[in-house]
Amino acid sequence: MLELAVELGPRSYNISIENNLLSACGRLARGLNSNEKALLVSNPKVFNLYGNAVADALDAAGFEITVALMPDGEEYKNLEIASEVLDAAVGARLERGSLLFALGGGVVGDLAGFVAAIYQRGIDFIQIPTTLLAQVDSSVGGKVAVNHPQGKNLIGAFHQPRAVIIDPLTLNTLEDRDYLSGLGEVVKYGIIYDSQFFEFLEDYADNIAQRDNETIAQLIYHSCRIKSEIVAQDEREAGLRAILNLGHTFGHAVETLTGYGTHRHGEAVVMGTRAAAHLAADLGYITEGERQRISRLYKRLKLDFTFPELDPSQVYQSMLGDKKVSGQKLRLVLPRGIGRYVIIDDPGQDRLMYAAIIAQQE
Amino acid sequence: MLELAVELGPRSYNISIENNLLSACGRLARGLNSNEKALLVSNPKVFNLYGNAVADALDAAGFEITVALMPDGEEYKNLEIASEVLDAAVGARLERGSLLFALGGGVVGDLAGFVAAIYQRGIDFIQIPTTLLAQVDSSVGGKVAVNHPQGKNLIGAFHQPRAVIIDPLTLNTLEDRDYLSGLGEVVKYGIIYDSQFFEFLEDYADNIAQRDNETIAQLIYHSCRIKSEIVAQDEREAGLRAILNLGHTFGHAVETLTGYGTHRHGEAVVMGTRAAAHLAADLGYITEGERQRISRLYKRLKLDFTFPELDPSQVYQSMLGDKKVSGQKLRLVLPRGIGRYVIIDDPGQDRLMYAAIIAQQE
Repeated sequence: MLELAVELGPRSYNISIENNLLSACGRLARGLNSNEKALLVSNPKVFNLYGNAVADALDAAGFEITVALMPDGEEYKNLEIASEVLDAAVGARLERGSLLFALGGGVVGDLAGFVAAIYQRGIDFIQIPTTLLAQVDSSVGGKVAVNHPQGKNLIGAFHQPRAVIIDPLTLNTLEDRDYLSGLGEVVKYGIIYDSQFFEFLEDYADNIAQRDNETIAQLIYHSCRIKSEIVAQDEREAGLRAILNLGHTFGHAVETLTGYGTHRHGEAVVMGTRAAAHLAADLGYITEGERQRISRLYKRLKLDFTFPELDPSQVYQSMLGDKKVSGQKLRLVLPRGIGRYVIIDDPGQDRLMYAAIIAQQE
Repeated sequence: MLELAVELGPRSYNISIENNLLSACGRLARGLNSNEKALLVSNPKVFNLYGNAVADALDAAGFEITVALMPDGEEYKNLEIASEVLDAAVGARLERGSLLFALGGGVVGDLAGFVAAIYQRGIDFIQIPTTLLAQVDSSVGGKVAVNHPQGKNLIGAFHQPRAVIIDPLTLNTLEDRDYLSGLGEVVKYGIIYDSQFFEFLEDYADNIAQRDNETIAQLIYHSCRIKSEIVAQDEREAGLRAILNLGHTFGHAVETLTGYGTHRHGEAVVMGTRAAAHLAADLGYITEGERQRISRLYKRLKLDFTFPELDPSQVYQSMLGDKKVSGQKLRLVLPRGIGRYVIIDDPGQDRLMYAAIIAQQE
C-alpha cells in the first residue's frame, strides 16, 4: 500500500492508495474512530457501482451505516442539498463522535465535507474519492464548500478529513473526458512544483494516456505528495496554496466568455496554463524550449486543448473582472522553468492579450 | 475602559467594556481590519435602538456598510435565515478580508457568527452584544450555530470573533425578564469557578437587582474574564468547557417536560442549578449551608425560580433521554463548595429523583 502523511499538527492524517482498497475502508476507519453510527454520502451513479462494497466493509467493521444520496452534478452542490444531507445526519442520530464518509467525486466530497464541518460544530469525515480529479486534488487539503448562485465555493470551511482512502481501480469506470479533466491538475503539479515528477509524466506519457493502472497509482501518489506538501505549508490558503491556481485566471476567462459548461473546468485550466506558459516565455521566466516541452506533454497525454478563438481584449477584461470592481490587483501564477513558479502582478493589457493571441495559434 | 484578552494563540482577541462604547466601534474595528466593505447583521428591534449609532461610527471609520436584518426570535435562528444573510453578504460583494458585525442578542450573534464562519470559508466578525446573556456568555468563546428542527445548535462551527465590543448602556432598554435570564449565567460562574466573584455578587446583590450601571459593568467584566479563562483552556469543548453546563441537565428536563417556551432557558437553568445544588449537598460535595447560600443569592437577585411540580420519575427519564438511546452515560456538573465544580457519572435514579423532589419543596 502506498501511504502518505499530511502533516498538519493535530489535524494530520494519512492518504492510503491501493487497488481494491475499498474493501479495507471499514478496517481503516475503525482504527480511527470507535463510534457506532456513520453516514455514507454518495450519489446514485457511484453508489450503484461501489456502494455495496463500501457498505459491506463498514458493516463488517461494526459501523451502523445510514446512506444519504445526493443528485449527481455540480449544480446540486448547493446549500439546499447540504441541508438535506444534514437532515439525514440528524435522522441517523449522528453524534459528535460519529463519522461521515464521502464516496464519490469532487462534488460529493466538497458537499459531504462541508456537512461534516458544520454538523454539531464539526465531526470527523473520511474521503473515499472515486474520480481522478478528486483523488489527486479535491479530496486532499480540507477545502470543503458548496456553491452560491453568484459564485463557486462561496460557502464553505477548512475542515480536514481524518483519512483519504484511494482505490485507483474505481477509475476503471470513469469516462475518458473525466479522466483527462483530472490529468490536467496532475500536470500542473509537475510544472510548478516538481521537475522530477514532470519527467516521470514525460517518461510514462503513453502508459498514462492508455490508463495503465500501475502507472496511475504512482501518479496519484506523487500528486497527493505534492499537494500535501503545499497544504502543510499553507493550510488556510494565505499564500503558497495560491500556486495551485496556475492556469486558472486565463481559464476562468475562457469559461466566462464561452459560457460555463462549454469546456470542462479541467479543460479550461489546460487552455489557461498554455496561455500562462506563453506569457512566462514572453517575460523570460521559461525558455521557448521549456514552453514547448509543456505543450508536447499535454499533446501526448491527449490534453490537446488549445486556447479558443476569443477576442483578446475581452479576455483581458474578463481576467480583470471582479478584481477591478473590488480594487484588488490582478495576480498571476506562472511557471518558472519546469518545476518552479513565480507570482507576478498584472503585466499589463498588451502582454496578456499577446499571450492569449499566440496561445490561440498553437 | 475595561479590557480583557481571550488567549487563543493566533485566534486571540480582546473584549472591551465601556459605557457608550457603541460610538467607538468604528475606530476599534478599523484598528483590526483595513477592508472597505462590511456587513452589519441585526434585527429590526435592536437596529431601531442602536443601528444608527453603530452605522454612523462605522461610516466615520470608512466602512462601506450593508445592513442585513433578520427577524427577532430563537425560531428564526435557522439555516434558511442564515442562507438569506449569506445572500446579503454576496450581494454586498463581501471579500475574504471583509468584516461582519453582529449587533444584537445571542440569536443574532450565533447566526451572524455562523454566516461569518462559512462565508468564503470564514471571514472576520465582531460581536456587539446588546443583551446581558450575550454580553456575559454567548458572544465570548466562538461557539456559533443555528438550530435544526430536531435540536438546538445542531448546525454550527467554532469561529472566534476578532473582537467583542460591549456597551453596558444597551442594557437600559432590556426587559426585566431578559435581564434576569442573563443574570442566571452570571451566578453560574461564581458557583463553579470563582468564590470571590460569588462574594461580589452577594455584596452587591441589591445594586444588581436594581440594575445599577456601574455594578453591571463590573459584573460583565468578571463574567467575561471567567468565561475567557475556561475557553482558553478548552476552545473546542473537549473537556473543561462542559462545566458551563451546570444546571443544564436538570434544566433541559424542565424545558422538555413543561414544553419549550413555558420557562425561558435562563430560568430553567436556575431551576436546574438549584436541583443540582440539592444533589451536591446530598452527595456531600457542598454543605447544606453552602446550598442555602446559593439559594439565598438567587432570591436576592430576584432569580427565585423554584423547580416546577413534575413527576420525578419523568424528570429522571427525560434526563436520560438521548443518552440512553445512544448508549452514552449521563454525566452531571455539580458545585463543589462555592467556586469549584465536580463532574459525576449518573448517581442513579433514586438520588436524582430525590434532588428533583426536594428542589420542588423549596
